[in-house]
Amino acid sequence: MNELIANRAEVVTRLIRPRSIAVVGASSDFSKLNGRPLKHLIEKGYAGRILPVNPKYPQIAGLPCYQTIAALPEAADLAIVAVPASEVIASIEALGQRGVRAAVIFSSGFGEMGAAGQALEALLAERARAAGVVLCGPNCLGFVNAFDNVYATFSQYADGPTGPGPIAFVSQSGAFGTAIAALVRQRGLGLGYFINTGNEIDLAFSEIMANLIEDPRIRVAAGYLEGLTDGASLVRLAKRCQALGKPLVLTKVGRMAAGARAAASHTGAMAVEDAVFDAVIKQYGVLRARNEEQMLDMLEALSQPRVAAGRGLGIATQSGGAGVMMADRAEEMGLTVPELAASTQARLAEVVPAFGAAGNPVDVTGQFVARPELLREAVVALMDDPNVHIGIVWLQLMTAHVDTLVRIFAEIQARTTKPVFVCWVAAPAAALTALRALGIVVYTAGERAVEAASALARHHEFQQRSTTHDKVLPGEAFRPPGAMIEGVQATVQATAWLRAAGVPMAAVALAQTQDEAVALWRAASGPVALKIESPDITHKTEIGGVLLKLNDEAAVRGGFNQLLQNAARQLPAARLHGVLVQAMATGHIELVIGVQRDPVFGMIVMVGFGGVLVEVLKDVAWRRAPFAIDEAMRMLAELRMGALLEGVRGQPAVDRVAIARLLADLSRWADAMQPVLAELDLNPVMVGVGGPVAVDCVMVLRNLRANEGALH
Amino acid sequence: MNELIANRAEVVTRLIRPRSIAVVGASSDFSKLNGRPLKHLIEKGYAGRILPVNPKYPQIAGLPCYQTIAALPEAADLAIVAVPASEVIASIEALGQRGVRAAVIFSSGFGEMGAAGQALEALLAERARAAGVVLCGPNCLGFVNAFDNVYATFSQYADGPTGPGPIAFVSQSGAFGTAIAALVRQRGLGLGYFINTGNEIDLAFSEIMANLIEDPRIRVAAGYLEGLTDGASLVRLAKRCQALGKPLVLTKVGRMAAGARAAASHTGAMAVEDAVFDAVIKQYGVLRARNEEQMLDMLEALSQPRVAAGRGLGIATQSGGAGVMMADRAEEMGLTVPELAASTQARLAEVVPAFGAAGNPVDVTGQFVARPELLREAVVALMDDPNVHIGIVWLQLMTAHVDTLVRIFAEIQARTTKPVFVCWVAAPAAALTALRALGIVVYTAGERAVEAASALARHHEFQQRSTTHDKVLPGEAFRPPGAMIEGVQATVQATAWLRAAGVPMAAVALAQTQDEAVALWRAASGPVALKIESPDITHKTEIGGVLLKLNDEAAVRGGFNQLLQNAARQLPAARLHGVLVQAMATGHIELVIGVQRDPVFGMIVMVGFGGVLVEVLKDVAWRRAPFAIDEAMRMLAELRMGALLEGVRGQPAVDRVAIARLLADLSRWADAMQPVLAELDLNPVMVGVGGPVAVDCVMVLRNLRANEGALH
Repeated sequence: MNELIANRAEVVTRLIRPRSIAVVGASSDFSKLNGRPLKHLIEKGYAGRILPVNPKYPQIAGLPCYQTIAALPEAADLAIVAVPASEVIASIEALGQRGVRAAVIFSSGFGEMGAAGQALEALLAERARAAGVVLCGPNCLGFVNAFDNVYATFSQYADGPTGPGPIAFVSQSGAFGTAIAALVRQRGLGLGYFINTGNEIDLAFSEIMANLIEDPRIRVAAGYLEGLTDGASLVRLAKRCQALGKPLVLTKVGRMAAGARAAASHTGAMAVEDAVFDAVIKQYGVLRARNEEQMLDMLEALSQPRVAAGRGLGIATQSGGAGVMMADRAEEMGLTVPELAASTQARLAEVVPAFGAAGNPVDVTGQFVARPELLREAVVALMDDPNVHIGIVWLQLMTAHVDTLVRIFAEIQARTTKPVFVCWVAAPAAALTALRALGIVVYTAGERAVEAASALARHHEFQQRSTTHDKVLPGEAFRPPGAMIEGVQATVQATAWLRAAGVPMAAVALAQTQDEAVALWRAASGPVALKIESPDITHKTEIGGVLLKLNDEAAVRGGFNQLLQNAARQLPAARLHGVLVQAMATGHIELVIGVQRDPVFGMIVMVGFGGVLVEVLKDVAWRRAPFAIDEAMRMLAELRMGALLEGVRGQPAVDRVAIARLLADLSRWADAMQPVLAELDLNPVMVGVGGPVAVDCVMVLRNLRANEGALH
Repeated sequence: MNELIANRAEVVTRLIRPRSIAVVGASSDFSKLNGRPLKHLIEKGYAGRILPVNPKYPQIAGLPCYQTIAALPEAADLAIVAVPASEVIASIEALGQRGVRAAVIFSSGFGEMGAAGQALEALLAERARAAGVVLCGPNCLGFVNAFDNVYATFSQYADGPTGPGPIAFVSQSGAFGTAIAALVRQRGLGLGYFINTGNEIDLAFSEIMANLIEDPRIRVAAGYLEGLTDGASLVRLAKRCQALGKPLVLTKVGRMAAGARAAASHTGAMAVEDAVFDAVIKQYGVLRARNEEQMLDMLEALSQPRVAAGRGLGIATQSGGAGVMMADRAEEMGLTVPELAASTQARLAEVVPAFGAAGNPVDVTGQFVARPELLREAVVALMDDPNVHIGIVWLQLMTAHVDTLVRIFAEIQARTTKPVFVCWVAAPAAALTALRALGIVVYTAGERAVEAASALARHHEFQQRSTTHDKVLPGEAFRPPGAMIEGVQATVQATAWLRAAGVPMAAVALAQTQDEAVALWRAASGPVALKIESPDITHKTEIGGVLLKLNDEAAVRGGFNQLLQNAARQLPAARLHGVLVQAMATGHIELVIGVQRDPVFGMIVMVGFGGVLVEVLKDVAWRRAPFAIDEAMRMLAELRMGALLEGVRGQPAVDRVAIARLLADLSRWADAMQPVLAELDLNPVMVGVGGPVAVDCVMVLRNLRANEGALH
């Protein structure tokens, strides 16, 4: 198996960096989809062997053209397949027989074409596997490897200059991917790789990107996603990017479609899909760009080598208002606009004209046109401040002063090692070109510059966290029950398992008679709750299955009977196992905590505030299991009502760390339970000054190993 | 007085459209601040008389130059003042004596220069008033009136082409304003007026804009604000824009600074400033652009004549992913992406290739390059759908097909009367220019196109509302108390006033003895609350001044004594007027409703959910008083926890209209009370199925007429 994997990795490497390329269905008309790769390979100087295959031609552009795949003089590293959909399977089988191990399939007419296309696609996948051919596509634009002049594509992007750069970009969309690639070129950033994965019936986003990021010439990974099936593979990619110190930036559409999903359990009956995606990629340090412009802005910041070693933003501006706008946005993005050290203020006071402002933002006014050294010295002083980690200089127009300003920015760049972005609104084109040629990051809108600065700072912060998520102990200690009963688990048993995993659970015992219930009440030495116990009743309150605060024998006896009667009346078919007796829990804050199986990312732990808040505000946070306490603390920090934990309206503060420990312990348990855990709800978890305690628990197990083995 | 106002309006009109311009401190060096206006006036063909004033020159560029202001041959309509700050006052006085009634002052060195500058500025304002000279500035770049070739400015903007267009732009910032003006030019939209108001010691944003929007050549008003002191004037402007059907777009920085303000009262102890600004301008139909890019995007949509007669967005795209991204954003912006009528779907099925999608978004794929009629017919079919009110067509790159595509878009434009925006990512520059020359709105990013479409739809919606806010009856019926006692009002009195104004108040009576308290309890026929009554105690709960659910004589007697004792012990100096007795109110929802005085906009009504929600979530909505029920309904719709009103977790829904009526009645009362109302808190207002009822009331009156007469 490992050999097979190693072999596949080698095949992918050859696919991306082929020494020879067969073009199946090659056309001599270079304006056509099946002629364009030949044109680009020849014109842009691909150094390997180009092997056109088409029975119609003896040769194309001076290259010998082969009548059939079988007639190929060698087993090419890569085949480009540009034939009608109906001929693709035969071509792939012929390629396999000829020893060709990798193909990129341009042809459309598969999964995107209704039921018939989907059936054809499934057959193609099966036959390609059998033939031992790794596929990129079908229904894709192919790819560009700009380092090796591989143009296995018909994308319009290849029509223009495609000089290589430090960005690897993989897109599930051809048209949107081409647009983004063109925008990268417009900014002069440079793509090393641009790959469109199309229908992804074999090679998908994460596997391809995992190959590209190993290339030392690649500094940044960028992806455009429309869907995702293999979350584990994306997580592995993200971890590898972290180990390499290379940022991964993703844009994914379908943010709002999340609202459509209705999960089965109560706490799960909320929009999850995109929220889970968003939470999980953040957990593993992936930067999400909300659209193509933000992606480009981030790529420009991340392509340069300087790091933002903290969140302190220094702003120098020609307009007080622009400074305020950027400071607003910095606050929203979690950056600080720190007060400057006294020494910095003294330096600034020497250079900034009196009617500017020497605080942060520094208003240098328009005077620097007459005295360029003013701008230079002010910005250098700002960047030297110990609390400033990244700088933005805002200016506008200045058409008549481009040369002077570019020189000043070059000097500033040389006098600090911290990243300094230029934000030049309504910039003359010459200014953008000249600054980028000097390796200076430049934006044309203030808020966008701030957002990019924030991405740079977040990337650094995540790198500092280093491999926190690997420090989580795997939950091996917990063994899934040998003789598992599928379905809702007995509360006493579930409670015992969770307690063994470290989760603080309120004590609970099962009474099968009135006398047992009374004995348990006496043992509790205080008021108790009675709850009906049945594997068929998950929402006890709704059928009158819960009684609270009983504190005398008569009440306990009466309650016991009442619960059994209520259940028998409302759900006559339900199996009744008795009545749970539980000391009343205290705590002024009510949380809901749960574990869900996400079809993409597997075991997901959720926390939110209970009652109406979870229902109306959807104020919940998600993480992929397992995770450590520090990650759980960040979950809690995400909750909009989080201030409740600090105590409001006279209530005492509670221990965040204790809640975080519960979440981390639960996540470790959930990870170990992955083969059998369908769902867990702890609702409510009461939190008082003594810490959290889960007072209700619905645990559902299923034998899931068989059909979901791929999740981990 | 009216004559004076009419005269001032005439002076402002002459300032903006002068028949002659004196340039005080004119320089023969046209690269200098005080030479640039002359250069532009001469080169760009100003048709009026140009009158330079400077003792140094006998003439400048062939024009006679006058030695002094007194020597001017006529009382120019406008004087440009470009002399050192120390000479400005003398110049203004001389202008007044010479009969010049309006001046724009470039000079800096005033309010922006610390205490000394502020003193000089105050003196300048006073002397200008005395001299009868209306001022724009000081510390401003001046202005451009492109219709009449008036270049009373030294802004860099004037250096390039300044052909007039339908946009009037007034900016408080010179540098940021110039940047925005340059961006307007870059888009080919055209500014009719560009005015920088500087320190606004006399003419301020709203007064100038009120003049510009009367010009029939102006279709859109745009403003960049950093601060605002006269909210009433902005409201008048907004109402006038509505009457004229001209959109007003504002960008204001300082969104987050709001967090800094801490108001005195409990419910007011939240960030208000920017939130109030945001709420009030929305109330009067102003479109807020969060930054300069969004402003430009909105201006491009609003400068063209077509209206979006509804919220239905039709999307045609070359990329499924781009369609999803735009649909996501449409949902976020309150637009719909409607299902298409069967007839539309049938038309689309005829033209769209099978592997595209004929829903909305319509995926036309890249095939339209080969068959241009495909794109044209698909988009026309989409636009003909009755539920589609505005369209966006997304495409990318297509460098080789610009002419074809421009022709297609021109045909589409001719075949529908609805607005169709083109979103062309990585567009060739020639495409943007050609489309804009045809009057076709074009963006280069999908989300931005959607945001602009949403602005167009919101503008139309607001116009449909027409003059709703004028239908509110003024609150004249309510007379402020003749013999007003300043400070916290007696609860019984305040309750009576509010009830007279239509606000549902829980019955409350004052007991001065135990016997009176008991009698009131008996009259209530149920449990009562007792509350200490004192003008010196506004937060009763905090000093043990409230007892709830008392329902027997002993409890009422004991409670009466206890409250008096608690108050005497904790606040010995407080004047105790007795104990309030109130039937316990019912209702499962707790609101806080209040009235605050905003220093800019005057009487502001607030509503939010009570308890921890108002404190932690700041989930409140604001409106300027007075307003009608429909506006109050929109307030309620803004609350994030608004779903609580529909009933969650088994609670019944409550009557939104009854709450809205309370808010509208309260707003009318607050408006009438403007001269004396310092603050009102109704906290809580309990809402059950029977409607809302305010159970506590803190009303503070002050004699505010003297110092705040300008508010209305």
